[in-house]
Amino acid sequence: MKKENLLLEHLKHYQKSDMYPFHMPGHKRCKNKFTDEFLNPFEIDITEIEGFDNLHHPEGILKNSMEWAAKVYGADKTYYLINGSSSGILSAVCGTSSLNSKIIMSRNCHKSVYHGVILNHLRTEYIYPQIIENLWINGGVLLDDMEKVLENNLDASAVLIVSPSYDGIVSDIRGIAEIVHKRGIPLIVDEAHGAHFSFDIREKDRFFPKSALDCGADIVIQSLHKTLPSFTQTAVMHVRKGYINLERLEWYLQVYQSSSPSYVLMAGIEKCIYEMKMRGMEYYKRLEKEIAQMRKSLSKMKCLYLLDKEVIGHFGVYDIDYSKIVVSCQNTILSGTTLGKLLREKYHLEMEMCGVDYIVAITTCFDSQEGLCRLTKALLEIDEMLFQDSLKEKQKGNAEMKNIKSTWQKKNPEACMSLARAREKKWKRYIISECEGKISAEFIYLYPPGIPIIVPGERIDREIINQILQYKKMGLPIQGMEDKASEYLMVCTEE
Amino acid sequence: MKKENLLLEHLKHYQKSDMYPFHMPGHKRCKNKFTDEFLNPFEIDITEIEGFDNLHHPEGILKNSMEWAAKVYGADKTYYLINGSSSGILSAVCGTSSLNSKIIMSRNCHKSVYHGVILNHLRTEYIYPQIIENLWINGGVLLDDMEKVLENNLDASAVLIVSPSYDGIVSDIRGIAEIVHKRGIPLIVDEAHGAHFSFDIREKDRFFPKSALDCGADIVIQSLHKTLPSFTQTAVMHVRKGYINLERLEWYLQVYQSSSPSYVLMAGIEKCIYEMKMRGMEYYKRLEKEIAQMRKSLSKMKCLYLLDKEVIGHFGVYDIDYSKIVVSCQNTILSGTTLGKLLREKYHLEMEMCGVDYIVAITTCFDSQEGLCRLTKALLEIDEMLFQDSLKEKQKGNAEMKNIKSTWQKKNPEACMSLARAREKKWKRYIISECEGKISAEFIYLYPPGIPIIVPGERIDREIINQILQYKKMGLPIQGMEDKASEYLMVCTEE
Repeated sequence: MKKENLLLEHLKHYQKSDMYPFHMPGHKRCKNKFTDEFLNPFEIDITEIEGFDNLHHPEGILKNSMEWAAKVYGADKTYYLINGSSSGILSAVCGTSSLNSKIIMSRNCHKSVYHGVILNHLRTEYIYPQIIENLWINGGVLLDDMEKVLENNLDASAVLIVSPSYDGIVSDIRGIAEIVHKRGIPLIVDEAHGAHFSFDIREKDRFFPKSALDCGADIVIQSLHKTLPSFTQTAVMHVRKGYINLERLEWYLQVYQSSSPSYVLMAGIEKCIYEMKMRGMEYYKRLEKEIAQMRKSLSKMKCLYLLDKEVIGHFGVYDIDYSKIVVSCQNTILSGTTLGKLLREKYHLEMEMCGVDYIVAITTCFDSQEGLCRLTKALLEIDEMLFQDSLKEKQKGNAEMKNIKSTWQKKNPEACMSLARAREKKWKRYIISECEGKISAEFIYLYPPGIPIIVPGERIDREIINQILQYKKMGLPIQGMEDKASEYLMVCTEE
Repeated sequence: MKKENLLLEHLKHYQKSDMYPFHMPGHKRCKNKFTDEFLNPFEIDITEIEGFDNLHHPEGILKNSMEWAAKVYGADKTYYLINGSSSGILSAVCGTSSLNSKIIMSRNCHKSVYHGVILNHLRTEYIYPQIIENLWINGGVLLDDMEKVLENNLDASAVLIVSPSYDGIVSDIRGIAEIVHKRGIPLIVDEAHGAHFSFDIREKDRFFPKSALDCGADIVIQSLHKTLPSFTQTAVMHVRKGYINLERLEWYLQVYQSSSPSYVLMAGIEKCIYEMKMRGMEYYKRLEKEIAQMRKSLSKMKCLYLLDKEVIGHFGVYDIDYSKIVVSCQNTILSGTTLGKLLREKYHLEMEMCGVDYIVAITTCFDSQEGLCRLTKALLEIDEMLFQDSLKEKQKGNAEMKNIKSTWQKKNPEACMSLARAREKKWKRYIISECEGKISAEFIYLYPPGIPIIVPGERIDREIINQILQYKKMGLPIQGMEDKASEYLMVCTEE
């Protein structure tokens, strides 16, 4: 390998370009007083020597630090995670269940939740979030749905939902927590995308929704790096005592995290929390003003459409994260991918995510005014171009897409065995059209909306086959199929 | 919290002190041309954007990088690990077994191996390494022992041993691999402490032992940060095809590692391998000379004792790692802890580990000549002081210690149930002396030698009780007891 091909060189070269990040990590690669304090990372990269404690058995500086953080957050316990939210989620899932027990989870959970389910051989009951119909984005979880699923699954040992979603959709955590606690079990909230909520400390007229921790959830996992100035792979887990076996939870935390945790990452976690505690509201007041301005401008788009507060109160949406800029292009000739490509190549703006017919931009308190203006200007310019085009030429619309969306089925496929059991059976590759009645050995996702069409152990019926074939025909991004290029599925060869 | 109490400030303050590190990480916090290339970490801390691939589904720059690394190492596959060797070991244990299957493992394995055993509910058969009798340090695994244990456990699905040990003791991996392969199962080697072996590329007159990968092991896990210039929490896993189900192994790798892996850590891994490939032998030729000089000087110590090549060929020791400086103080009035304290407080030298009656210093190619001289000088000075003292006053010796060592039992305690099952049972706290016949729910370690006296699911007999009581009476560092301060053990209340 030549030196110029090293990842490090590519990263440095990329940093020198004028590409602006509307994606995680939340520090936006800024060079400023805050980030400059970490020069040079090697100098502070130590191990568990005298005076520097041990993350897995904290008794000194790390114990004090995490206790301080718990106070900042108002948690009974706060844990620093150096293997990302993934490690917190695995620990929460396994720490609140035992082998073969049952978990109630929202179907749109991150894959790490499914991993936990498989590791602990859990039985699953899914709760489907609503779909924001005109956008085909996951909405929130309805209280009625939660009530029903709890009533029908009295043997469940925990409930886990994601809020906010990747797209910034927040469910009614307070309401859900009350319902869940009536059954005497804990509510775990994957708040990976909402770590910034905690630092809007106003009681009223808040810019951000309240954190799930402040709404009564028992375990809350937050990715610090997604929306706050912290290194990628850093996260925190907050716990409220009462429904949680701490000993069990802590055991899994040391299992799923390196026994040589990075002091650079840990120092970064603490420094991030400290910075946000000291200057969070100052940052947010500025960001709030700039986002309001941006949203006002973008609300005037004629062809593109900005997801805004009008969805609140519908589709299970309790609140939204205003710092997530979700722009739909479904009524235009552009796909989300094409819109993202245009923003990247013409405007040098990199989005967080480009879906089938929308894009997501993450803004944080480390964004510059110039960066936010560039995005606003670019979207308005593209919108105007689309508008001019649509005057000349009738828009292609997206009849096929609408058709697809109408077939989007919310019914739970029949689960014939646990995910773990399906994974341990013998597998065989079959042509999709011949899979009717067989049991899937793999996950099949359509992303977005990011809900698995089928998970291991579920029976593949005719409807599902038709759905997959249609998606593939349309070139939609089906994920998780072992054999992406062809028309095969992995199925279990024994029941 | 005050700013000066932040972990970051403590780390910076520590770096400014003249404390010299004889511990991991291998870059020794050097400020030089190599480490300076990482300024500023935030600037290169990105996420999976266009052009930067995805560690868990590599198709671009990371795939190419890991393929290049595999060629450098001579592996069929090499994986970058950003959650330490721990994540590689969990993946190796779970990826070569299924629920309830059996693993043959050396009893002195790292706790991450035991974690994997519990996660996958494995049955275990232990192989006990030899004990280097005069030092009470783990020796190597005997081929005869391996042969026997394989013969008696035809249902085992994998073998896992650690080599080199924490103390730098290397087993005969080539011989062991041959024996294991005859049974058609894979050999996994935890080579966390031997990542530097791979970059001594000489066929003959090597300074370092050969890597387990070059001796026929099927999965080899190496911590890069321990002995090479790489960030803490970074590691690699090498695989030889043949006995390994890659698909299964890779599934666990993505489960046990964050779905938001750090590009700083990944760039650090690649850069470390690149540096060692380009300049490894240059570094080693210098280090070799300096270590030889150091060992020659230290061989003259009259009271302290340097572990050196004379152990090779005894106690299952196939080879040793000359860069590990293991100094025994067992025939002196000093304990390992006191010797470590003396080195820290008087000489500002921080050791990697201080055991009951020895210390371990890690030296790497990033050590300065000045640092190595400081350690040599300090040890010689302390030795001289001890010698003067011993002339004046008869040495206390350590009769009690010798007595303890003679009771060190190698017999396998009776396993009544799997570790996982014992952990899931109801537990109760009992006074140690009343635990006879009960089944342990916890691990009890004496470190060193770092072999668990008992693991969950094993029956506590009178001999074990006496052993633990005696150790506690002597103030030896017993680890893993839930209730360190008092005289209780956690036992299962049902069989």
